[in-house]
Amino acid sequence: MAGDGPYRNPTPTVDVLIELDGRPGTVVLISRRNEPRGWAIPGGFVDLGETLADAAVREAREETGLEVELTELFHCYSDPARDPRSHTVSTVFLARAAGAPVGADDASAAEVFALADLPSPVVFDHGLILADYATYRATGRRPPPRR
Amino acid sequence: MAGDGPYRNPTPTVDVLIELDGRPGTVVLISRRNEPRGWAIPGGFVDLGETLADAAVREAREETGLEVELTELFHCYSDPARDPRSHTVSTVFLARAAGAPVGADDASAAEVFALADLPSPVVFDHGLILADYATYRATGRRPPPRR
Repeated sequence: MAGDGPYRNPTPTVDVLIELDGRPGTVVLISRRNEPRGWAIPGGFVDLGETLADAAVREAREETGLEVELTELFHCYSDPARDPRSHTVSTVFLARAAGAPVGADDASAAEVFALADLPSPVVFDHGLILADYATYRATGRRPPPRR
Repeated sequence: MAGDGPYRNPTPTVDVLIELDGRPGTVVLISRRNEPRGWAIPGGFVDLGETLADAAVREAREETGLEVELTELFHCYSDPARDPRSHTVSTVFLARAAGAPVGADDASAAEVFALADLPSPVVFDHGLILADYATYRATGRRPPPRR
């Protein structure tokens, strides 16, 4: 049964790959204020009573100041080792937005990067997600079911 | 932070749309042993330390006896009202399998239905998922991000 029963379950999260209008082939990343330090895709935990889509829009707003429009559900990532702190399952959305990102909340900065010229280090499994996204943009091929 | 902190989160689940080899345009549904009674897509809760894909293969095996091969991650469904018992987030996979389904575990029966001739009642939001799947098969169009 559910998470409040005798069984334990991973925690659902969302991440958002944001492309700014007029800047194709780029993505907004945040510099994390907390450990693990490094660059990450904006995102966070889904609240009880909140849809994945609402969580994605909220987290993008909180961490980058951008009002995003979700364009696609991209994929899910659930490797138990993807976050060293606890087992999380991320649903990753694609989104567009206008304006310029400003880091806030868990983000000390939010910047726009070309997919072909990403910063380092990228934390969690976000390097894999960004590589899958670059492949999808280039070929239309989605990631395999096991991620 | 995570589900063990002060915040509460929905619980991740999986569902599997199984097409048997040689029977295109069909799907395996189970008759639920417990409330809510009715027909449902095979699936269940994701265990801590388990990937979504492993949970999907395990639940399909437990409820239908089929050894499925996952072919695609289809979509996610997270409306807080989708399950009357608690807020769950379902990741839905497409899969293929050989052989014939046999209901077990939470399923009192497992049967093969044509997508164009589904049984009634179908519980949870599984009618919506099956309609989205029929559209995807017919048109290649995926569901909108908000589901």
